[in-house]
Amino acid sequence: MTLGEFELIERYFKPREPLRPDVVLGIGDDAALLRPPVGMDLALTTDTLVAGVHFDDRMDAADIGHRALAVNLSDLAAMGATPAWTLLALTMPEADEAWIQAFADGFMSLATRHCTSLVGGNLARGPRNVTVTVAGLLPMGQALRRSGARPGDDIYVTGTLGDARLALAIMGGLAPRATVAQRSDLYTRYARPEPRLAVGQRLLGIASSAIDISDGLASDLGHLLDGNRIGAVVEAGSLPLSRTMREVVTDQEARDHALFGSDDYELCFTARPALAGAIRALAADCTITRIGTITDGSGINLRYPDGSEAALPVSGYRHF
Amino acid sequence: MTLGEFELIERYFKPREPLRPDVVLGIGDDAALLRPPVGMDLALTTDTLVAGVHFDDRMDAADIGHRALAVNLSDLAAMGATPAWTLLALTMPEADEAWIQAFADGFMSLATRHCTSLVGGNLARGPRNVTVTVAGLLPMGQALRRSGARPGDDIYVTGTLGDARLALAIMGGLAPRATVAQRSDLYTRYARPEPRLAVGQRLLGIASSAIDISDGLASDLGHLLDGNRIGAVVEAGSLPLSRTMREVVTDQEARDHALFGSDDYELCFTARPALAGAIRALAADCTITRIGTITDGSGINLRYPDGSEAALPVSGYRHF
Repeated sequence: MTLGEFELIERYFKPREPLRPDVVLGIGDDAALLRPPVGMDLALTTDTLVAGVHFDDRMDAADIGHRALAVNLSDLAAMGATPAWTLLALTMPEADEAWIQAFADGFMSLATRHCTSLVGGNLARGPRNVTVTVAGLLPMGQALRRSGARPGDDIYVTGTLGDARLALAIMGGLAPRATVAQRSDLYTRYARPEPRLAVGQRLLGIASSAIDISDGLASDLGHLLDGNRIGAVVEAGSLPLSRTMREVVTDQEARDHALFGSDDYELCFTARPALAGAIRALAADCTITRIGTITDGSGINLRYPDGSEAALPVSGYRHF
Repeated sequence: MTLGEFELIERYFKPREPLRPDVVLGIGDDAALLRPPVGMDLALTTDTLVAGVHFDDRMDAADIGHRALAVNLSDLAAMGATPAWTLLALTMPEADEAWIQAFADGFMSLATRHCTSLVGGNLARGPRNVTVTVAGLLPMGQALRRSGARPGDDIYVTGTLGDARLALAIMGGLAPRATVAQRSDLYTRYARPEPRLAVGQRLLGIASSAIDISDGLASDLGHLLDGNRIGAVVEAGSLPLSRTMREVVTDQEARDHALFGSDDYELCFTARPALAGAIRALAADCTITRIGTITDGSGINLRYPDGSEAALPVSGYRHF
């Protein structure tokens, strides 16, 4: 017998840990009831992953669950917000309990790790589609935004860039030299992105602007320039590359993956040069690398180690 | 040339009216920033409509837009909340601008009418799926919940019941006696439900429990009994039926539609008998009808005009 919507939610999506104290009413009524603390702004965002478009439906369901929440938490990280509450709208062709259990494991583990409570959602039949909504909290008026960078600001990124893109290339049959260990390492970077929440929160009051890199560095850094009448110079030699990336592809390919590869979910942010020490002193669970400078020009110029420069085409993932 | 995600949002989903003053930052960053007022709780809910499952994809896109938002606002109405902010995650096979324009018209008109700002969302390619998240505000601790009914409470519903179910039956080729005007009237009830927000808000401090009727009266009234060790008697002769319903089908069919038909999006609520006068005095844009009484029994009994009673099967829409 197939379990119904209510039984599935009860069995797999009711949090095992106590709910956050600011959850007045969780799953099970017409809406969740939450009590935002005084003096805090609310950051609210939603993102969808569609099978066959944003992920291969043969992926491990636990990875899909992790990734669907991670890409949303990454948006909160880019605002410097602390995640609080989550809603999950999941449609799937049939109620395959093994799939749901694995999905819920991946989703709920990440939710628990970041102290966010799943407070509501929707399970329905349909082509596989995972839409997650997350709400986070921020000291009033302190959020990091995409606007705010000024000429002279340093440009930074977290972690390493391009690994997810290389993983996709390998899954597509390219980069045949990669060993099993290398493939596994890169695949994890694609399937299990780590939202940079701790870094984002510590950048409040320090960064002048921030965004998460979902569509590729060139495209997302472009959004920090949009409408501000500013440009950027990125040092080709400073792009942070993983050891696996360096081992598996040429320098030129690595640079292309780092600049144009989507699905990194690292942060890109800017800060006044005087704050470089404060940024170096940020205790973070990932590296932070200065990759360039905001200029009073326009667009993004890539500067090579020999001092020559080339304008970057700004082209990220196109959703249509 | 196909417009990209950003252009589509800019053209069709940027609100034309000024944003609510509690919107610090709307569409265009990694997350929206909202400022909840002090002393208010937040009600948060999400609901998905899938083409071919929850609606016929040949429906007018403006109706789909209205309905996708209305079913979510109906959940807020059932809590007594005042809607504030909305997120829209829309996936569709291709960026058909005529479809998107009509959808946005239906969606944004209803949003404007209820003073809610669209503050974020996601447009992506995929099978048509409309997932809406709404956030509403409530005086702290005052929300209407599904729990709270006690034996002796009166049971009420808003509007008329079963019209949406009859519309679906007609679309499926049944009830052939209906005229064009009757079909149109019923279809509107299905395609353009009116969330009972004003009634819900006025029931704060009056109703002992409330729910919206999405899966059918028998099923949703059942949720008001769940876990409370109470039952209900519903007077068959009191079920509110539209004139069109009475004209088109037999009394027996009308009663079945009213009891078991989904997609009504009316409210069902309970209140102490002493508050009957206060409920009659509620100035509302829809009728409010007393249909029965909460008992110390279990399940739902239907009482016929001759005094006989029959236990109702509790069977609503099954999502799997």
